[in-house]
Amino acid sequence: MDKTIGFIGLGNMGAPMARNLLRAGYKLRVYNRTSAKAQALADEGAEVVATLRDVVEPGGIVVSMVANDHALDEVVLGENGIGEVLGAGGIHVSMSTVSPQIAQKLTTYYRRQDAIYLAAPVFGRPEAAAAKMLWICLAGDAGAKERVRPVLKALGQQIFDFGEKPEAANVVKLAGNFLMGAAIEAMAEAFTFAEQNGVAREAVADVVSQTFLACPLYQNFGKAIAARHYQPAGFKLSLGLKDMNLLTDVAATSLTPMPLGDLLHERLLSAMAKGRADMDWTALAMGASEDAGR
Amino acid sequence: MDKTIGFIGLGNMGAPMARNLLRAGYKLRVYNRTSAKAQALADEGAEVVATLRDVVEPGGIVVSMVANDHALDEVVLGENGIGEVLGAGGIHVSMSTVSPQIAQKLTTYYRRQDAIYLAAPVFGRPEAAAAKMLWICLAGDAGAKERVRPVLKALGQQIFDFGEKPEAANVVKLAGNFLMGAAIEAMAEAFTFAEQNGVAREAVADVVSQTFLACPLYQNFGKAIAARHYQPAGFKLSLGLKDMNLLTDVAATSLTPMPLGDLLHERLLSAMAKGRADMDWTALAMGASEDAGR
Amino acid sequence: MDKTIGFIGLGNMGAPMARNLLRAGYKLRVYNRTSAKAQALADEGAEVVATLRDVVEPGGIVVSMVANDHALDEVVLGENGIGEVLGAGGIHVSMSTVSPQIAQKLTTYYRRQDAIYLAAPVFGRPEAAAAKMLWICLAGDAGAKERVRPVLKALGQQIFDFGEKPEAANVVKLAGNFLMGAAIEAMAEAFTFAEQNGVAREAVADVVSQTFLACPLYQNFGKAIAARHYQPAGFKLSLGLKDMNLLTDVAATSLTPMPLGDLLHERLLSAMAKGRADMDWTALAMGASEDAGR
Amino acid sequence: MDKTIGFIGLGNMGAPMARNLLRAGYKLRVYNRTSAKAQALADEGAEVVATLRDVVEPGGIVVSMVANDHALDEVVLGENGIGEVLGAGGIHVSMSTVSPQIAQKLTTYYRRQDAIYLAAPVFGRPEAAAAKMLWICLAGDAGAKERVRPVLKALGQQIFDFGEKPEAANVVKLAGNFLMGAAIEAMAEAFTFAEQNGVAREAVADVVSQTFLACPLYQNFGKAIAARHYQPAGFKLSLGLKDMNLLTDVAATSLTPMPLGDLLHERLLSAMAKGRADMDWTALAMGASEDAGR
Repeated sequence: MDKTIGFIGLGNMGAPMARNLLRAGYKLRVYNRTSAKAQALADEGAEVVATLRDVVEPGGIVVSMVANDHALDEVVLGENGIGEVLGAGGIHVSMSTVSPQIAQKLTTYYRRQDAIYLAAPVFGRPEAAAAKMLWICLAGDAGAKERVRPVLKALGQQIFDFGEKPEAANVVKLAGNFLMGAAIEAMAEAFTFAEQNGVAREAVADVVSQTFLACPLYQNFGKAIAARHYQPAGFKLSLGLKDMNLLTDVAATSLTPMPLGDLLHERLLSAMAKGRADMDWTALAMGASEDAGR
Repeated sequence: MDKTIGFIGLGNMGAPMARNLLRAGYKLRVYNRTSAKAQALADEGAEVVATLRDVVEPGGIVVSMVANDHALDEVVLGENGIGEVLGAGGIHVSMSTVSPQIAQKLTTYYRRQDAIYLAAPVFGRPEAAAAKMLWICLAGDAGAKERVRPVLKALGQQIFDFGEKPEAANVVKLAGNFLMGAAIEAMAEAFTFAEQNGVAREAVADVVSQTFLACPLYQNFGKAIAARHYQPAGFKLSLGLKDMNLLTDVAATSLTPMPLGDLLHERLLSAMAKGRADMDWTALAMGASEDAGR
Repeated sequence: MDKTIGFIGLGNMGAPMARNLLRAGYKLRVYNRTSAKAQALADEGAEVVATLRDVVEPGGIVVSMVANDHALDEVVLGENGIGEVLGAGGIHVSMSTVSPQIAQKLTTYYRRQDAIYLAAPVFGRPEAAAAKMLWICLAGDAGAKERVRPVLKALGQQIFDFGEKPEAANVVKLAGNFLMGAAIEAMAEAFTFAEQNGVAREAVADVVSQTFLACPLYQNFGKAIAARHYQPAGFKLSLGLKDMNLLTDVAATSLTPMPLGDLLHERLLSAMAKGRADMDWTALAMGASEDAGR
Repeated sequence: MDKTIGFIGLGNMGAPMARNLLRAGYKLRVYNRTSAKAQALADEGAEVVATLRDVVEPGGIVVSMVANDHALDEVVLGENGIGEVLGAGGIHVSMSTVSPQIAQKLTTYYRRQDAIYLAAPVFGRPEAAAAKMLWICLAGDAGAKERVRPVLKALGQQIFDFGEKPEAANVVKLAGNFLMGAAIEAMAEAFTFAEQNGVAREAVADVVSQTFLACPLYQNFGKAIAARHYQPAGFKLSLGLKDMNLLTDVAATSLTPMPLGDLLHERLLSAMAKGRADMDWTALAMGASEDAGR
């Protein structure tokens, strides 16, 4: 069993995840681009290393949770990147929301040196990460998946397996985020429709979230959108745009017309242009309100 | 307590609802435009009457479940309509999906003769109607609502109250149907996106319906849409279009831009133009597939 | 040859049209709902009559230019309407932008009494009406079209014939207005795109209106939209919405999905909700600007 | 005055342009990735060179007309690229439809070595190129623009100047192509609307292209779209998609929501998915027909 894990990326998601690994008894070597964030982890027992590649134990496991495709590329192939040192038998578990394209690229890269790339993007916000309640979308080599399973169990409540091709997990993750955004826009329009016709936004939210849409997304987001509470951000609008940029790119590459995907994209671009980058991404709902003169 | 109820409209929804009232011990006077459908109810104890107004016991309760605004207008104000005979203290419980405008019109009409119009549209398909599992959106005069409550309890699992203005219930009902349609379109695009990128439609359906979208709508519709099973119809596409026609009309009248509402409307118009009137309304999902060349 | 013409509707369009008929030597009997507007015409020689039906000379020609379907219906079938008195051989030339449905209804109505309904909606603003520069879309009975041709020649620069079914002219008129609105939205997005990328709105307007889009619509509207001059109104936004409401209704009835038509509809609803009813309908272009935070 | 010109890219557009330069008396050194195409030019007097950089006369003028950003990047910075040899005072006139981003990148690159990048994308199809009827959008250094003007006059009918920043010309070019696509979609919907209501597609095309839309785009495309003639291709649909991919990318980067831009993008993706890459890009109009079941 693996006792030491390399961990890269201590942002809002990465930090609580690393903490859960420490609590599960793992020894951690952590790296963060800005070292201040790493210090808090050091106080809880993590070994903070100076350069990216120092997190690696050859043939071991490295988990990364970084901002985007570019950051992930740098982690592997950039200066002091782990790509050259991960070594035969090593596994890179990439938990960020990134494109299927980079998953394919890194899978091919690692394979040439007998290392393995696993995609394991997650559903859940920082609170869920802290509470080990993440839902993990896992894909890649079967043996490697088996080996990292105990690590992932220390991070989330459930693991969904999408087969041997890592990029499949990224596709599912993007589709899932799209479904969230679609629900936000749908509620925004439904509640505004009610309001314009003299009915309280909450009236619609209440009935559907107790009946055919009785699930966390409509219940939690529904309450916030009905009350127009778009701050503080659980998931920043700028990150929501990053994900929908990925979605529309992958949709274009794969010749998939997505009119609802495009609508979400427009809402997010508009919200960014209006200075709402740091609001929660449910603030895309403000578009429907403003269009109706509210 | 009311023991005899007038019941108008014995279609896919109305027939099982009337049956539940009989089983709950009510005496029913039923009317249907085509009398063949009424006969089955007669066998179970209902009194089948020859003209619309014969269902009325002056000052009593009449429940109607008819196809659309026009049919409802005829029931009240047409030849042999119940409007002139319902009488002081009478209550018309209108359970169809109709426009807020006709609710306002009939409310005003009945008020002039000391009768009362209650709106009580429902969420649920014929199976739900048969199983007394309907969700009922109720609005109108407080005293009248109290009086019809036992009747409604014999028809559904839960009653939601939207205040004193009947049309509010119709607004909520339209908003709810819109949210259903929006979820269908969202899944259609998400699943097609997965498929175009080499991932099974079911993969996305499975993970979201077990996690943040773990609710009947995404679970049941999700399975059907993933498998592309659009027949037989639980709720016909032609009826879905009728409802979305209402939605876009009310949206226009109330100056509410609804781009997602319009997208659903386009999908349904297209499906009708392609001859899919009798499929289930989840068949609007075929639009996303066809746009992607599938 | 007809020397006396009945004329109904002296609004922004009707008044200059009536004036041109007087100048062409016709005797006019004019009616307007509010008589103040009729007085100016009286000073120029028109006979102002007290009720609608007084404009009629049995078997003669009546031209109407009224606000919408409802007003047209009243003109023919309402109190003192001309329908009952127009008489055998009479021709009603309806020049308003109305629905194909009402054209069909009135055609049938008049036919029963050997009178004739001609549809003759026009392209052009009040200045064009004053300058006899209207483009007229004519459809209906061949003989009647021949008889009214001299009258129409006194009103416009060119007559386009769309066959024997009056409603065809209304369909073409709605399609034409849609093409105008589509061009406005296209320019709004194109100019905003330039602006967001550091290029003057005028730069795009200039090049296209001198090259592949060198036509009045792009030249005139292009200049106004580039400069964001949306007032005073040549054609009010509230009227633009009325026409696009007709378009979307007819599109729905005829099972024609029109995503661009819906986009225009949304833009106009939004502009109305923001209090822009009295601006020119090019103000729908403000939507693209506002979405980009400008 | 410059007598010798380097010319790179002899595709459908580049070949007739090069030919016009020869006819105007210029000596040409031409390069094409596949040399067969260059041979025809050799027969007309051009000097065919073996590698990219051989087209360069240090300090001279090089014109390029290549497929996309990637190809342009290779021309300058790839193997045997001209970037290192163009030299002080040299001018690269880039006439392809490419992104503003690559224009900025190459402008900066050339400036470091006292060479100059000019953007000069064109409006017009191969026939227009052959007939010297191109419209040229020019931007960049003032002195350099003056020096290349005689060259450009041998290629087109009119030159539009967009200032000192090369990328401005690319922005205008993308906006222009978007306006073309928007007009195609608008006509597609308008003609389908007519057809669904019993009016010939040509009826609408005829009246608008003689009146407020009397310009080449609506006249030529209008006739083709009305008749549903989408082949042979004047401008391939796959190239139209390339340009609209650029548009939506630049729109996203510049935070410009473009719902009509997105609609065009969806139509083109759908047409590609249905195997229409080699049709004319007016074939995006088939989307509106198919949506209406035609």
